[in-house]
Amino acid sequence: MSVHTSGAPDGPVLDRLDEAECLRLISPGGIGRIVYMGRYGLTVLPVNYKLYGGSILFRTGQDSPTGEDLQTGIAHAEYQVAFEIDDINPAAHEGWSVLIHGPAHQMTTDTERALVEESGVEPWGPGPKELAIRITPDRIAGRRLRQG
Amino acid sequence: MSVHTSGAPDGPVLDRLDEAECLRLISPGGIGRIVYMGRYGLTVLPVNYKLYGGSILFRTGQDSPTGEDLQTGIAHAEYQVAFEIDDINPAAHEGWSVLIHGPAHQMTTDTERALVEESGVEPWGPGPKELAIRITPDRIAGRRLRQG
Repeated sequence: MSVHTSGAPDGPVLDRLDEAECLRLISPGGIGRIVYMGRYGLTVLPVNYKLYGGSILFRTGQDSPTGEDLQTGIAHAEYQVAFEIDDINPAAHEGWSVLIHGPAHQMTTDTERALVEESGVEPWGPGPKELAIRITPDRIAGRRLRQG
Repeated sequence: MSVHTSGAPDGPVLDRLDEAECLRLISPGGIGRIVYMGRYGLTVLPVNYKLYGGSILFRTGQDSPTGEDLQTGIAHAEYQVAFEIDDINPAAHEGWSVLIHGPAHQMTTDTERALVEESGVEPWGPGPKELAIRITPDRIAGRRLRQG
């Protein structure tokens, strides 16, 4: 499923991963990192996510810095964010990473809230996490390092 | 070493970590994520790092997208980046993350190259990684999730 390979045949090899392979790798859900340019500069926060209907879903607090940062204040305008997931084995010097770009949509209608419940996504941190964010990928890129 | 705590006493608790605790947590080195606003938008890439002399050191290719992105083209002007390190145990629902902000300095003088060698930092990906980048933290923030 790799679409491009570089590296010496007997050393580590870096494969570019196509979208289907990226989605397969991230489909179990778990911990990913929401990344955006916030009021305090570049922000990177681990969150618990689910891949649901082809989108990333995670939860945060409505009044948390992240919840507030991801509101543009303009109707139908959505904040552009990135979402990173990786699984790396430093000892084996192998692993993969996937980077998604897309708008951060706030799931606020009744229909959307029902979808969030259905997805079963749980928050990572403590406290009320009543706001669910959905990132529908505009762009998916991934790479895998393996021993050749 | 936590300086602020929130959460119910019998649920997960989120501790803010002070700088000394953040530096202690990241001092073993390993895999972190370089984060910056690059030509393709928000970029997040796992790299191998060392904490050396209080700074983050990692290696990349001089002509790689990252190497090129992190050059401002203006003498003495350095790209502002973030660097994220975390260690998370999803099963236990515990873990910590550290976020560093600072300028990405290219280690190009002989003295700087000697420091890079001394640090022993190894590249993560394959191919020549002749460019070493040093991030001297302007700001260090961290948090730890634990079961109360």
